[in-house]
Amino acid sequence: MSSGRFITLEGTEGVGKSTNLKFIESVLQQHQISYQLTREPGGTPLAEQVRELLLANRDEQVADDAELLLVFAARAQHLEQVIRPTLATGDWILCDRFTDATFAYQGGGRGLSKEMIGQLELMVQRGLQPDLTILLDLPVEIGLARASERGELDRFENERLGFFVKVREAYLERAAADPQRFAVIDASGTLEQVQQQIAEVLHHYLESQETASE
Amino acid sequence: MSSGRFITLEGTEGVGKSTNLKFIESVLQQHQISYQLTREPGGTPLAEQVRELLLANRDEQVADDAELLLVFAARAQHLEQVIRPTLATGDWILCDRFTDATFAYQGGGRGLSKEMIGQLELMVQRGLQPDLTILLDLPVEIGLARASERGELDRFENERLGFFVKVREAYLERAAADPQRFAVIDASGTLEQVQQQIAEVLHHYLESQETASE
Repeated sequence: MSSGRFITLEGTEGVGKSTNLKFIESVLQQHQISYQLTREPGGTPLAEQVRELLLANRDEQVADDAELLLVFAARAQHLEQVIRPTLATGDWILCDRFTDATFAYQGGGRGLSKEMIGQLELMVQRGLQPDLTILLDLPVEIGLARASERGELDRFENERLGFFVKVREAYLERAAADPQRFAVIDASGTLEQVQQQIAEVLHHYLESQETASE
Repeated sequence: MSSGRFITLEGTEGVGKSTNLKFIESVLQQHQISYQLTREPGGTPLAEQVRELLLANRDEQVADDAELLLVFAARAQHLEQVIRPTLATGDWILCDRFTDATFAYQGGGRGLSKEMIGQLELMVQRGLQPDLTILLDLPVEIGLARASERGELDRFENERLGFFVKVREAYLERAAADPQRFAVIDASGTLEQVQQQIAEVLHHYLESQETASE
């Protein structure tokens, strides 16, 4: 049995990840693809506990490298318990954020070195990469305005505008450096316009997979 | 003001760390050394939460690399919030376990590569090392018999004998490779005998520090 495909969805706050995740699921279902939906940080009971530590607002200042190592600890657990075993059965993984988010938030946002992040990436992923990454892109001001309507903000959502500007830039840089894997979606239009773009990306990708397996 | 000294106490289960930590404190107090007692994993509110995640018995198998990254996440936080700032004021740090324990438990016990541990060590410590490490050494059978009298065992204490044999070996290897920093104490004798050895090590070390600062 061939390995499943690994699809990730990325983007800053308020770009519409949750809504569009459901839309991606509906496309996979239409194509009768057996997949598991998961998220980062999280995806296993231990990794979800680490997620809680990461998102909690706290009096204690969280050291940037401690934050980075917590993210990768959760990821190592997620890879071992969920992602690798699922892909090995031939099922697909649809993951709400992955290592591109680390390069964006901890690299771009916090300013941690990309070399350090790359070392940790190699340590826990050992070469495994998403097959397709859909990046929902939106000017930061619009995204934050949308996100702020949700109510209580977590430790990341409470960051300032400048932080998210750097996060977005880092995402776009990652996408530009790997256009084969990334599909950048303009998330500023209507939901219908956004989903039309996503549908096109997915159909194109699914077609290429069918051709490849013929 | 000169930097404080960084003393660590190491050893496997049941070697008498808690009792002898109090004894080391009494010697520092006799010498009117201002110090902070701390421990790993832990030492800050966030790092103590990570400690709880690490020690909890759980149904989910913890991936070795996830465990390693959690240990270093807690350490990064501890270094930034407690160890570096304390040493900078001139106060000493007395720490119950540090990175030698990681080389022993995750390296020796779990079999993770020393190169990987060394990379993480460099990432978070950036060259900072303990000035003096006291290793309480004891045949594993004796230590485990002592530890088992304590009641409920944590996720590490529940490991098998072979695990601790490898942990002890790794500790002794670390000590042999850095005899300048390590003092290996035979912890199999009476408490009086053990504390006499520790007292000698400390008096010798404190004397060398006084000579150095004259």
